[in-house]
Amino acid sequence: MTAQITIIGSGHMARALARAALRADRTVQILGRNGSQTRDLVESLGPGATGGIVGAPVEGGIVILAVPYGEVHPVLLELGDGIEGRVIVDIANPIDVSTFDRLLTPAGTSSAEEVAAIVNGRADVVKAFNTVYAGPLEAGSVDGQHLDVFIAGDSEAAKEKVSALVARSQMRPIDAGPLRRARELEAIMLLVSGLQVSPAHENFNWDTSLRILP
Amino acid sequence: MTAQITIIGSGHMARALARAALRADRTVQILGRNGSQTRDLVESLGPGATGGIVGAPVEGGIVILAVPYGEVHPVLLELGDGIEGRVIVDIANPIDVSTFDRLLTPAGTSSAEEVAAIVNGRADVVKAFNTVYAGPLEAGSVDGQHLDVFIAGDSEAAKEKVSALVARSQMRPIDAGPLRRARELEAIMLLVSGLQVSPAHENFNWDTSLRILP
Repeated sequence: MTAQITIIGSGHMARALARAALRADRTVQILGRNGSQTRDLVESLGPGATGGIVGAPVEGGIVILAVPYGEVHPVLLELGDGIEGRVIVDIANPIDVSTFDRLLTPAGTSSAEEVAAIVNGRADVVKAFNTVYAGPLEAGSVDGQHLDVFIAGDSEAAKEKVSALVARSQMRPIDAGPLRRARELEAIMLLVSGLQVSPAHENFNWDTSLRILP
Repeated sequence: MTAQITIIGSGHMARALARAALRADRTVQILGRNGSQTRDLVESLGPGATGGIVGAPVEGGIVILAVPYGEVHPVLLELGDGIEGRVIVDIANPIDVSTFDRLLTPAGTSSAEEVAAIVNGRADVVKAFNTVYAGPLEAGSVDGQHLDVFIAGDSEAAKEKVSALVARSQMRPIDAGPLRRARELEAIMLLVSGLQVSPAHENFNWDTSLRILP
């Protein structure tokens, strides 16, 4: 059996994304860099999930890069031609976590656009899931309300695939426009992360989620 | 009687801000540039509201610039020394409304920081109300939930004054940090406005509001 979704990484976001994909009845391949952590994650996910080490053949038509911003570039190099023709999902927030006061990307671009530059047409790049934390993503809801998942990209077909995954997983996909809207999606998370870590905001925590009403 | 809040402008946002201030039991002075529109607005607001033309003495300790981004600079020049020692609230969204694809401000700054540069220490500048549309602001809620109002500024005392107004008006003030966080607050509205105007998003409209859960 070939998995439908490949998730690169074995941390909290990888786990949450895997559970969301399984909830959507998709099969999942976890490719981690930490062998034992990857095995533990795959075992805990149960049926529908398989795993391996980054470098193993990529199975999914959708490949989600569930690694921190600083690892996106090296992971893409490791994946090499394995991404050819896939939908690559960038979830990174390029935040300077020593200050929560600036983005690590230069002005006028975004992590997602940097990924697109590296991918260079070999795959379609979509920005998604960067505004959701692992807990609400795994649950599919927060505070009794469904999660909003913003999706930006230049390929309508690629966005539709990610959108279908999100909707099937009982969350609300919101088409945010072209890939360059990732700049705004990443910017707002600089603000939200600052709220989340601030001791002055005791009601904001790892459940904190961004939502558009109605 | 001297009004507590001065609102510059006589449009939809001026009206909604005035109603929010009156709901908070504050007296309001409307200073417009369109005399008849200003008179109509003041009359419709009823007790607690007075009005005049921009150039008349500013009464409020809080002065809200309820004008489009392109009019902020000229209005500040007209107000001149009338802003001395006040709390100036910038609500502008510097969006290129011909495309909804870019901000009009250069990278690395914001409308609020531009206001601070013009004010040049003569008053404290606060960014607030830019993420709310007039309808939900006038109602104080959307979709049965209270409105979030993000407040950014470099003066804690000034932010507290605006925060008290918001809380008293039955909305939730969220301290978003220093004035430079206005960059992210303005960026996210490029995205939200794009959703609001897009025919593809039929559930987003002038009631559309940004909220942080929980």
